[in-house]
Amino acid sequence: MNLLQKTLDIIRPADKEAIKKAWERMDNLSKPIGSLGKLEEIAVKMSGITGKVKNRINKKNTIIMAADNGVWEEGVSACPQELTAIITNNYTKGITGIGVLSDYAKADICVIDVGVKAEFNNPNIINKKIAYGTKNIAKGPAMTREEAIKAIEIGIEAVDNLVKEGYDLFGTGEAGMCNTATSAAVISVLSGMDSDIVAGKGSGLTEEGFANKKAVIKRAIEINDPDKKDPIDVLTKVGGFDIAGLCGCFLGAAKNRVPIVIDGIIACAAALCAFRLNPNVKDFMFPSHLSAEPGSEYVMNEIGLRPGLNMDMRLGEGTGCPLEFCIIESALCVMNNMATLEEASIHNSEFFVDIREK
Amino acid sequence: MNLLQKTLDIIRPADKEAIKKAWERMDNLSKPIGSLGKLEEIAVKMSGITGKVKNRINKKNTIIMAADNGVWEEGVSACPQELTAIITNNYTKGITGIGVLSDYAKADICVIDVGVKAEFNNPNIINKKIAYGTKNIAKGPAMTREEAIKAIEIGIEAVDNLVKEGYDLFGTGEAGMCNTATSAAVISVLSGMDSDIVAGKGSGLTEEGFANKKAVIKRAIEINDPDKKDPIDVLTKVGGFDIAGLCGCFLGAAKNRVPIVIDGIIACAAALCAFRLNPNVKDFMFPSHLSAEPGSEYVMNEIGLRPGLNMDMRLGEGTGCPLEFCIIESALCVMNNMATLEEASIHNSEFFVDIREK
Repeated sequence: MNLLQKTLDIIRPADKEAIKKAWERMDNLSKPIGSLGKLEEIAVKMSGITGKVKNRINKKNTIIMAADNGVWEEGVSACPQELTAIITNNYTKGITGIGVLSDYAKADICVIDVGVKAEFNNPNIINKKIAYGTKNIAKGPAMTREEAIKAIEIGIEAVDNLVKEGYDLFGTGEAGMCNTATSAAVISVLSGMDSDIVAGKGSGLTEEGFANKKAVIKRAIEINDPDKKDPIDVLTKVGGFDIAGLCGCFLGAAKNRVPIVIDGIIACAAALCAFRLNPNVKDFMFPSHLSAEPGSEYVMNEIGLRPGLNMDMRLGEGTGCPLEFCIIESALCVMNNMATLEEASIHNSEFFVDIREK
Repeated sequence: MNLLQKTLDIIRPADKEAIKKAWERMDNLSKPIGSLGKLEEIAVKMSGITGKVKNRINKKNTIIMAADNGVWEEGVSACPQELTAIITNNYTKGITGIGVLSDYAKADICVIDVGVKAEFNNPNIINKKIAYGTKNIAKGPAMTREEAIKAIEIGIEAVDNLVKEGYDLFGTGEAGMCNTATSAAVISVLSGMDSDIVAGKGSGLTEEGFANKKAVIKRAIEINDPDKKDPIDVLTKVGGFDIAGLCGCFLGAAKNRVPIVIDGIIACAAALCAFRLNPNVKDFMFPSHLSAEPGSEYVMNEIGLRPGLNMDMRLGEGTGCPLEFCIIESALCVMNNMATLEEASIHNSEFFVDIREK
């Protein structure tokens, strides 16, 4: 039995007993019930993940999957394909958006080459290259089914290994020209929404370029006709190595019962694939910001997540993850350190009533 | 000439030359122009405040103004009036929401009694008590004009003193039963919006209690008939010592050219008063989260601020400030530490185009 199937078989949902106990403590803290909104929900969700009411994060890591996409040759990106390799190298220098924001949040990054169309001579990039980019989805499938499973398993293994190193909060990032196009294709197929609605402009296209991008995505879906009930078939035919790799990260996090942050539209596509493969993974997912790309809101709604950050960000890289790490750690401080009503010398619990919208 | 007038006279707008230079650097960093959204705007706004392109925060402080409101006797709060004093004491123990969140963000708090209806025996509460609570606004003015100016000046002096201690990023918090009612009254008068629309449920009222709260606010505005063109008259007649004190904090921050975060509906009312007294103060204000109280969105729109956090929070205390401090410091890391296109080995600036919505 392969790693993917084993992983899908052992993923269990959140610990409902721990969630119950966590809400008991949260609702007994010295504040009107519900008044810390999403901070309360985050802290309680974490209890469901770990089984403990009080939690602390030891080490944080944003896993970055880098890969190229054959569909680049259709002109669906404003950027040259070589930029994937340049950015991937830059990740290891700490000078990119995700690098400087991770430094602030005291988080690490892990850069994995899962299919960049270039050779690296950089010991800080983990070489898991499946191929030098995918094939052009406008002409046929991006990859074989075996390659899709391999990419997913690379993601699972990445989390397995980082958990062994003590990491207990994960983020998801990527590099890959045209990956907003492949992500839109994946989300369109899985959601049944028209790809024209799901597609966004990515990193800056002209109106003409955007019209072409939408036409190419539509053609890719038509030509490949992926089975929407089979997420691996969707990844195989219109996805990318980066999306498949991140899909594996979400599965790996759920398997290891560690929290993982969804950032950006590529991670959204990957999260949706993981959720369709095993809906229990939603219990381990936290959203960062709401991406400006149109498919993001659909994915959040389907998985049942409500991002607390609305930063108009659309850089990708996983840049929302370090911001969300700070929010998550703040939420844990509320659960761990706020006084209960009794500790706060507030003895009549009627003082603080439930103010959540009914 | 009094401190308030002196302060209003010397407040200057943002440094436009520094803002121009800051955008030049920001737009030359290795990312599509505009792709880090509000993080970019925050970092550039900070440059306008300090006059420097690169900025670092040394010390952060959330100033908490605590005061009671005479309108409590009209039954507009679900909580007993003594809770103001209990919470104010608790602030100094580090066990409240603002306390534990400030600890996470490595920020301090400064608790000022500007009019609590109780005696404190607590050296960590700064005694600036103007009176033992305001008078009941449903029957007449909350305070005299002299008292309103005194409360504003207490806020100005608080920032003056903390700036001397090296603090260079401020937050705004409060404690005071019924202060969502007084805040709604202030915002209603200054905005011209019907008080029924502006009023929120605060810390948990029944439908009956909420109907009473709205009626009381309406009556307070009718009886006192404040001059909407004179924010000090509005504060005098339907405001509170806490709102006036925080108004002073905003003016003090602008005077000292340091950034200050608006948190919650009470700070929103105070910020609107400060903005009406001198519109330049907007250049020094950052929003934290969008409060669930209805008047908050109006104030943000009028001042021209767009909160990046949407956390469903409505505890008050200034609890959004430590979260926003992390966002602001993250934004500064982007400006200070991200590589320029050249440093990132990206030599053709056409790679990265402007993706802001036109």
